[in-house]
Amino acid sequence: MRNTLITLMLVAVPMFALAQPEQAVDQWTGKTILLIGAHPDDDSYAMGTLGMLNANGNDVYIVILTTGNVGTQDPDLGMMDLARIRRQEEQAALATMGIPLDHYINLGYDDGMLEYEDKKEVVAKLVRMIRKIKPDVLFSFDPGKGSQRWHKADHRASAYLSADAARAAMWPLMFQGQITVEGLEAHTVPEYMLYDSAEEDINTWVDITGWEERKVEALTKYVSQFSSGWYDYKGPELSPEEKEEVKNMLRQWIHKQRDGRPMEGFRYYAGLPDDIGR
Amino acid sequence: MRNTLITLMLVAVPMFALAQPEQAVDQWTGKTILLIGAHPDDDSYAMGTLGMLNANGNDVYIVILTTGNVGTQDPDLGMMDLARIRRQEEQAALATMGIPLDHYINLGYDDGMLEYEDKKEVVAKLVRMIRKIKPDVLFSFDPGKGSQRWHKADHRASAYLSADAARAAMWPLMFQGQITVEGLEAHTVPEYMLYDSAEEDINTWVDITGWEERKVEALTKYVSQFSSGWYDYKGPELSPEEKEEVKNMLRQWIHKQRDGRPMEGFRYYAGLPDDIGR
Amino acid sequence: MRNTLITLMLVAVPMFALAQPEQAVDQWTGKTILLIGAHPDDDSYAMGTLGMLNANGNDVYIVILTTGNVGTQDPDLGMMDLARIRRQEEQAALATMGIPLDHYINLGYDDGMLEYEDKKEVVAKLVRMIRKIKPDVLFSFDPGKGSQRWHKADHRASAYLSADAARAAMWPLMFQGQITVEGLEAHTVPEYMLYDSAEEDINTWVDITGWEERKVEALTKYVSQFSSGWYDYKGPELSPEEKEEVKNMLRQWIHKQRDGRPMEGFRYYAGLPDDIGR
Amino acid sequence: MRNTLITLMLVAVPMFALAQPEQAVDQWTGKTILLIGAHPDDDSYAMGTLGMLNANGNDVYIVILTTGNVGTQDPDLGMMDLARIRRQEEQAALATMGIPLDHYINLGYDDGMLEYEDKKEVVAKLVRMIRKIKPDVLFSFDPGKGSQRWHKADHRASAYLSADAARAAMWPLMFQGQITVEGLEAHTVPEYMLYDSAEEDINTWVDITGWEERKVEALTKYVSQFSSGWYDYKGPELSPEEKEEVKNMLRQWIHKQRDGRPMEGFRYYAGLPDDIGR
Amino acid sequence: MRNTLITLMLVAVPMFALAQPEQAVDQWTGKTILLIGAHPDDDSYAMGTLGMLNANGNDVYIVILTTGNVGTQDPDLGMMDLARIRRQEEQAALATMGIPLDHYINLGYDDGMLEYEDKKEVVAKLVRMIRKIKPDVLFSFDPGKGSQRWHKADHRASAYLSADAARAAMWPLMFQGQITVEGLEAHTVPEYMLYDSAEEDINTWVDITGWEERKVEALTKYVSQFSSGWYDYKGPELSPEEKEEVKNMLRQWIHKQRDGRPMEGFRYYAGLPDDIGR
Amino acid sequence: MRNTLITLMLVAVPMFALAQPEQAVDQWTGKTILLIGAHPDDDSYAMGTLGMLNANGNDVYIVILTTGNVGTQDPDLGMMDLARIRRQEEQAALATMGIPLDHYINLGYDDGMLEYEDKKEVVAKLVRMIRKIKPDVLFSFDPGKGSQRWHKADHRASAYLSADAARAAMWPLMFQGQITVEGLEAHTVPEYMLYDSAEEDINTWVDITGWEERKVEALTKYVSQFSSGWYDYKGPELSPEEKEEVKNMLRQWIHKQRDGRPMEGFRYYAGLPDDIGR
Repeated sequence: MRNTLITLMLVAVPMFALAQPEQAVDQWTGKTILLIGAHPDDDSYAMGTLGMLNANGNDVYIVILTTGNVGTQDPDLGMMDLARIRRQEEQAALATMGIPLDHYINLGYDDGMLEYEDKKEVVAKLVRMIRKIKPDVLFSFDPGKGSQRWHKADHRASAYLSADAARAAMWPLMFQGQITVEGLEAHTVPEYMLYDSAEEDINTWVDITGWEERKVEALTKYVSQFSSGWYDYKGPELSPEEKEEVKNMLRQWIHKQRDGRPMEGFRYYAGLPDDIGR
Repeated sequence: MRNTLITLMLVAVPMFALAQPEQAVDQWTGKTILLIGAHPDDDSYAMGTLGMLNANGNDVYIVILTTGNVGTQDPDLGMMDLARIRRQEEQAALATMGIPLDHYINLGYDDGMLEYEDKKEVVAKLVRMIRKIKPDVLFSFDPGKGSQRWHKADHRASAYLSADAARAAMWPLMFQGQITVEGLEAHTVPEYMLYDSAEEDINTWVDITGWEERKVEALTKYVSQFSSGWYDYKGPELSPEEKEEVKNMLRQWIHKQRDGRPMEGFRYYAGLPDDIGR
Repeated sequence: MRNTLITLMLVAVPMFALAQPEQAVDQWTGKTILLIGAHPDDDSYAMGTLGMLNANGNDVYIVILTTGNVGTQDPDLGMMDLARIRRQEEQAALATMGIPLDHYINLGYDDGMLEYEDKKEVVAKLVRMIRKIKPDVLFSFDPGKGSQRWHKADHRASAYLSADAARAAMWPLMFQGQITVEGLEAHTVPEYMLYDSAEEDINTWVDITGWEERKVEALTKYVSQFSSGWYDYKGPELSPEEKEEVKNMLRQWIHKQRDGRPMEGFRYYAGLPDDIGR
Repeated sequence: MRNTLITLMLVAVPMFALAQPEQAVDQWTGKTILLIGAHPDDDSYAMGTLGMLNANGNDVYIVILTTGNVGTQDPDLGMMDLARIRRQEEQAALATMGIPLDHYINLGYDDGMLEYEDKKEVVAKLVRMIRKIKPDVLFSFDPGKGSQRWHKADHRASAYLSADAARAAMWPLMFQGQITVEGLEAHTVPEYMLYDSAEEDINTWVDITGWEERKVEALTKYVSQFSSGWYDYKGPELSPEEKEEVKNMLRQWIHKQRDGRPMEGFRYYAGLPDDIGR
Repeated sequence: MRNTLITLMLVAVPMFALAQPEQAVDQWTGKTILLIGAHPDDDSYAMGTLGMLNANGNDVYIVILTTGNVGTQDPDLGMMDLARIRRQEEQAALATMGIPLDHYINLGYDDGMLEYEDKKEVVAKLVRMIRKIKPDVLFSFDPGKGSQRWHKADHRASAYLSADAARAAMWPLMFQGQITVEGLEAHTVPEYMLYDSAEEDINTWVDITGWEERKVEALTKYVSQFSSGWYDYKGPELSPEEKEEVKNMLRQWIHKQRDGRPMEGFRYYAGLPDDIGR
Repeated sequence: MRNTLITLMLVAVPMFALAQPEQAVDQWTGKTILLIGAHPDDDSYAMGTLGMLNANGNDVYIVILTTGNVGTQDPDLGMMDLARIRRQEEQAALATMGIPLDHYINLGYDDGMLEYEDKKEVVAKLVRMIRKIKPDVLFSFDPGKGSQRWHKADHRASAYLSADAARAAMWPLMFQGQITVEGLEAHTVPEYMLYDSAEEDINTWVDITGWEERKVEALTKYVSQFSSGWYDYKGPELSPEEKEEVKNMLRQWIHKQRDGRPMEGFRYYAGLPDDIGR
């Protein structure tokens, strides 16, 4: 009884929330991992970690809210063209990292408009994903200080919607239809890896040594985003020269070196979703 | 060229819309049939026809918008209880008619609240269903005179949302995410069987002779709706006496006898969805 | 048992809906009557009937959705001025008819904007009124043919919202907070008197002989609506000359003479709210 | 005083609403005419009448709600392409009819989504147009029986939104910002020509003799809508053969011959907007 | 004049906002106190202070937005069961603290869904409460740093909605219907006690010595929240053993000892509501 | 190519965002400046800077979202009165600063209700303004820490909506109708001057020496806001005594003296709008 109560208190009160994973991330295995993002390249923030986790015997899923069908300065690309290009790019990046393509789910919203969609419906869809995939760890935009100030609207929306969904998913009486007619069960996500956090809030650095070049290679697949394809898209393959140039840029840009090693930084949180933001 | 243009005109102009199916409904075979309704018993309006069509080699699908989790006067039933009961009832009724249970899809909305859900999202979901199932014939609440006056709010909503979805489904540029990320294709539903029409608008009577007793049997499965279970639910089986009594009531009630034969009446429409309501 | 079932069927199926009150309206006594309207003068449609019912020992309540704070062509009246004037006018009219002033409830919405308010919230408020007042008869704008075509937006909204509320009020599982925290009970309104119906849909004429002059007097209280006060409001009292002139106009206008007697016409409906619109 | 009151009553009560224009439409001159529609070809319903009115010394304005950027079956057209094509087509059609191009205003909404836009905002924009243009006559989709049944969603929305806007425009206290900061004035539209009405509701036929060929020519400009351009757009000019074929189709299709003369039919209404739908 | 202007400036400019109550909270008497929260136990944050204030001759009111009808892990509880349980628990807790039960008002929203309700309507209801109760001090979730990061959705909503309502309540021209038809008056709340603040933002500690055991007793009433009742509810009374165990937990948990005394911490703010968040 | 890529990276990554204008603000010339605010006096925050910029050959535009028609404690002022007064005040203040009156645009929303308007529509209108005016520098409420805590609702809304609009304006595929039918072009605002920032976030102080008295004079024009006119408005002219008193208050209040010189403080940001909030 006492143990139960202690557990209950732990669960109900944030004071014992862990600021560090009990087990180092590179030791994780057998976990189910879900990343939620707004655009088909938001997984870049955690690409090395995801690749490593996948290789270490964890199941990695990526749920992206929008098709990314707006983010171009190339006047010759329409919305359907761009959505198709970005789908191909995301799949190429995931393939590079060894993540199964059928673990990538896109909810099909229009890029740039997430803030204006019906929040209850978007949360319901994310709750369904959480109840289906039953993640042990949720990767999400950090709904903390990084979103406290104004923030690229879709990212801000993604951060809040993910956290709201994680909270709702644990209550059987919320979005009941998923339980009564779809046969799903309430699910409580116990651990969170929040990306794009304010620098001072990062409490967990994942050493991606050995994965850094695959990450750079994966990111070169986002031709329409991280190369001249942003304003003049010519197809999924960069010229060898531009590819090398892009890679050099990406190497400087994405590698946060700590102690001479490539790292990805997160705000880790364990506990009930009620207190993600503390 | 001329033929193309004529086709085009046919398509663009409602004047040639057919008021009767070219082929009698009981001769249909090899068609894909989709019924959209609001509650898990709205298919009652067409139960005989659906059973017959299924037996005749057509693929019959049922999409219901709400779980029916509100419609009870039994004070001991909560929303989740009722949703589960009504799911079981719907499955029992479909089994009676021989319709495969995995052809029944429930979208999980709360009963009675359909009018207050986000219309764009509900239409998007119905469009997805239409693009996946690709029906040759759509059965729907009639959004015509039967809905012109005030109407049980969910039925009114179902009528309009179905028609709006049928229209949207045909345009590749609407709800693009379904096409670009889910790999679906635009689909134009060519024929409509609208149920719960104003009496004077019914233009097609389907003779369900041979199916009438199975329909009556199927309807007795809706214990929480069409029996004392409405105010005092005691489980999925009626007593033999009440069951017979209910059956007698149902026989009088549902059989619109025409020329001494049991019939189900519809407003049939063929043509572009733009003119369903004409 | 049989009786129960028959009742149930009666209730569930509209076929036995009565097209005329069993007892003539002028014989009603001991009933609770609720009129829902959009503006503080919409009760004009039924003023004679309401006065008579009140005198005959029925409890008459008036719920008006908006303050009427927009409907003026007098450039010197602001929204708060007009709301106050129209409140005073409504009270004066009810006093003339002998209806207790504390039976008049105004929900305080802005005139002309009802269509843009949150429908779920407005319905919830009307459901609360129905569950508190527990009317035997609901007077409402007819959500039938009279609203089928476009219709003064607030009246159309009022018609649909009232009917939606009558439906929702009967289900304990809808707007549960009213039951669990406010101690109200679900209530089914059994009879409806729908006003402003299409001429051909009126099925019940109430003879208001003996009440016609009080009705005319009551309507002269709406100075800001039915007199020169519409464009140049000078206070709650008309000059004797204008008052007489207005009365003459009103006499011609409001008295639908049938068989030489003054009448008010309604579409009467008895049965479950699901079929009000049939 | 009496006259004032009579006017007031006329204005307040629909009973004297005129079912026919006092002056035949082809005699109108010096009037300001505003047509509101959903797509850049909805003015087709009244094209002959508009051309004639423009030539007769009336000021003709066209306000279209959407860019028409969805209505194609040509897989090679994106939304921006189509919007540009349909703008060019509309301008070409108006030029053919002699209507000044700067009298064409497009509010820029996405085609097919009008039902999901914020109604208050769309009405506010139409109210602004009405208060700026101050039309004597408003041409609008008929929000009557033609919309009573389900109806191509944008057309239904256009019908209701136009009528709601006509009503709101007359009240200085509605959408006050337009008056206090933009310097506009409240405006009451006195006459209405409602198009796409139910056949039996048409009460006014306009003889467009002398304008029929210009109308046919104008309609051939809608290449992306009324020709093979619907599924395979090749540019704004049809081949001479297809053009002739399209013209023949259009001649049969659009000319409602009455007494051997080409006609366009409307439901005419004069009176306060409150009763447009009666 | 000068004084007036100084007052005005004080009011208009936040620079003189007080960071501490002029009079120590335990000296307050004759004040009207209003606490707004999301769930029927959110007053726990201030329970000792509220009990003390009530005993000291202040009028204490509690307005809770939701019925708390979702927050259970007990699979046997439905939404209506839980709402009733939580109402009973809240009343038991208030009785323990000596607060009159009719000072507890619950607005009846569904738990967990506050973020998706219509904000304008919820604010209107809170404005009504503020204008009726006319609090001298408003206790509210702190819409400051504590909500800056993501936050249990209902708490975040409650924080912002309360602050928005406090602001709106002071303007006679906002939610006019409450003033013109309900006879309420605009009310400016001068002082705020914000609870659940970020630790570093707490500027006012209330010594609840003498009230700590009653607070602990009161909190044991929330059986469905703070005991094994969370996952297995057996009724409103805990066994003596569990009750003692829960009390011990609560003692450790809720008592923020400062200088060896039990305290409740708040961010105090005095000034116009415009600057609550500074 | 390299240069292009570097530019691209600069643009895509926030790391090089400038914390100070390259050129001192008082040296700016030939720039187009746009200020967006919620109320017709929010430009007070930057009035000295705007006057100076205007005099130095920059084009200064002011877009205000609401008419300010609620913010009074004078019981004799209605909403239309107040809107007109505040328009006159704003024009008088701009005239004092030498800013052309036709550079002031008011979008006409109701004061205090901005949070409840349709966000997509408001953003669309601001995007239109940005695409028309093509500002080099956008002045906006800071959507950063200053809004992180709760904040006067309209100011919070204005901050977020402006930032969302700045972001949307740069993408041709967002709000396409403005481009396809209005002939506007996507526009990327390169520099931002954010006002009402948290004190510690101000990174740019503009010395307004020489403009301080004109600013004080301009602010005295807001009679209904910064004088006894707040509760008792007597017209646009203050008595000489009160005017002097108000001026003295304003001098103390608005001059943030640094190094003995009058200053206005801003958070300056240069870079893509995606990172305004960092």
